[in-house]
Amino acid sequence: MKISELSRLTGVPVASIKYFRRQGLLPAGRATAATLAEYGEEHAERLRLIKALTTLGGLSIAATREVLGAVDQAHTTEGALGAISYALPVPVASQGPAGDEEETDADEAAAAEVAELLAALEWRAPGTSPHVKGLTTALKELRRLDAQYAPGELAAYARLAESVARLDLERASCLDEPVALAERAVIVFAICAPVFELLRRLAQEDQVRRRVTDDGAEPAC
Amino acid sequence: MKISELSRLTGVPVASIKYFRRQGLLPAGRATAATLAEYGEEHAERLRLIKALTTLGGLSIAATREVLGAVDQAHTTEGALGAISYALPVPVASQGPAGDEEETDADEAAAAEVAELLAALEWRAPGTSPHVKGLTTALKELRRLDAQYAPGELAAYARLAESVARLDLERASCLDEPVALAERAVIVFAICAPVFELLRRLAQEDQVRRRVTDDGAEPAC
Repeated sequence: MKISELSRLTGVPVASIKYFRRQGLLPAGRATAATLAEYGEEHAERLRLIKALTTLGGLSIAATREVLGAVDQAHTTEGALGAISYALPVPVASQGPAGDEEETDADEAAAAEVAELLAALEWRAPGTSPHVKGLTTALKELRRLDAQYAPGELAAYARLAESVARLDLERASCLDEPVALAERAVIVFAICAPVFELLRRLAQEDQVRRRVTDDGAEPAC
Repeated sequence: MKISELSRLTGVPVASIKYFRRQGLLPAGRATAATLAEYGEEHAERLRLIKALTTLGGLSIAATREVLGAVDQAHTTEGALGAISYALPVPVASQGPAGDEEETDADEAAAAEVAELLAALEWRAPGTSPHVKGLTTALKELRRLDAQYAPGELAAYARLAESVARLDLERASCLDEPVALAERAVIVFAICAPVFELLRRLAQEDQVRRRVTDDGAEPAC
């Protein structure tokens, strides 16, 4: 199909398609003349994924390029899942360089908290994992705000996160062909995270409303 | 204290403090001379919150201003929680205007899916809720990618989201004084969301690793 048909089929404007081509996110079409190219269904699929990642997933062009690179290079289910998991942006803004001694103490305390949590949960994750680093940063910042988790509270959240991850993995595993699986994994990992966050917000809304109308029991603080 | 002390105490550069002042995020200090102002502990607290929202929470200056406005105007626990919940950015990028008839059909199908889910869960949320709208958009996009949730799957996620929201509300309710509570609610709603997302990513890592090493049973697809 021509670029105009590709645009109509996917709802992505021609100018955006050309931009994604220049940015290396979309493979070239088959050249049929000096200024014409023929595109196939694989281009349409890739475009839908790019659109979903950049709008629904909120990924930057650079992050999208990295995720698609991981998708294209994965040859096994686990390889795809692992690569994608590490290629996705970590949901905690990176911090500037650590400053003084006080800062170093806070870093070490947070790192110890994370290590203790992982051990208690029997979760296997290397210290080099971007998620371990992100969680360490987040816990340090919460401590600075005097809003750290009470003992056992973080573990309670973690147990729920484990149940969510089990659902995620089931969802990501139900396709056999590697690339299709990798794309499904991107969808589950990058796009379904906002869905869960929306469900959590809706549940919060409902909980707040119940509190107002039911005059429910106060929690034990 | 002087602005230089405020900067040292909070780790926020003087230039950033002045920027937050100009942007209306931080109240003025008490003027002690034409070019000097005296700042108090309330300024330090507010600065720590601004820093956490903009870095850890990833909020824009405009979003931070809106959230802080909600914090300052809340006079009851439930008012604070509700206002903050709606002031926070919705974690799904907004879509362009709906186009053709096909688009309208897709919108209606997704809206029906959300309404059915809320009814099944007995969650109370008005159709005007930004979270209802966000979830509708997300489900429509997933359907477009042929990656919709299987029957019952979204409800399973929603039940877990409800458990997470219960923990959130307990965490947000354990301070009495309205402003302190509102600030705690901001922390819980805006900053602990990335913490849960990190826990979920870590749990995914662990699940993937177990799959590789344990050669575990395949899920029923």
